[in-house]
Amino acid sequence: MAVDCIFCKVVAGEIPAKIVRRSADAVAFHDLTPQAPTHVLVIPTRHLSAARDAKGPEGEAVLGKLLAFAAQVATDLGLDQGGYRLVTNTGPDGGQSVFHLHFHLLGGRRFSWPPG
Amino acid sequence: MAVDCIFCKVVAGEIPAKIVRRSADAVAFHDLTPQAPTHVLVIPTRHLSAARDAKGPEGEAVLGKLLAFAAQVATDLGLDQGGYRLVTNTGPDGGQSVFHLHFHLLGGRRFSWPPG
Repeated sequence: MAVDCIFCKVVAGEIPAKIVRRSADAVAFHDLTPQAPTHVLVIPTRHLSAARDAKGPEGEAVLGKLLAFAAQVATDLGLDQGGYRLVTNTGPDGGQSVFHLHFHLLGGRRFSWPPG
Repeated sequence: MAVDCIFCKVVAGEIPAKIVRRSADAVAFHDLTPQAPTHVLVIPTRHLSAARDAKGPEGEAVLGKLLAFAAQVATDLGLDQGGYRLVTNTGPDGGQSVFHLHFHLLGGRRFSWPPG
């Protein structure tokens, strides 16, 4: 757990969140400023600031479990038929605002292109 | 390799593509209709239609290697300082047009929110 990381605090239950699904490796919870009818954040329980900080086989395992978990959450939420978009932002151009790796899972409407 | 999958044909070298990086597990190449100064597609060499088709530990390994590879490509392309956005679309609402799992790696400009 990283000091002063709000997503680590969500994982630890120190900050309330509307949890959608939780495993030993990942947590999904509703975004506070949803951009679509379904907008869930999916984060690893282990603190990584972004995907690029996942080093070696252990880091790859965190990423793989996270993405598989996100797809499972989409299925749970009934998004498989309509479809969805998964987005992760890294650094200022990407628009990253919390420096704990997270995927945005967005569904329930049609998404345009380009993605921002 | 899936029959009539254009991304499997890129992996096999049967369709020309501007390759950025290649490993045993993944290939990165320039998008034909770029939406940013850098717009690269990152795909697994193994055919999966989307992340949700990656089953079990073997599937998670494909996803983890793919995402780590995408982050390495971003570093190679000098995007670490400015930042970037990674996007994968699943199904019609997401805007998926090729049914071989792929991440869009977009960088070189500031991306807006929501992501489409």
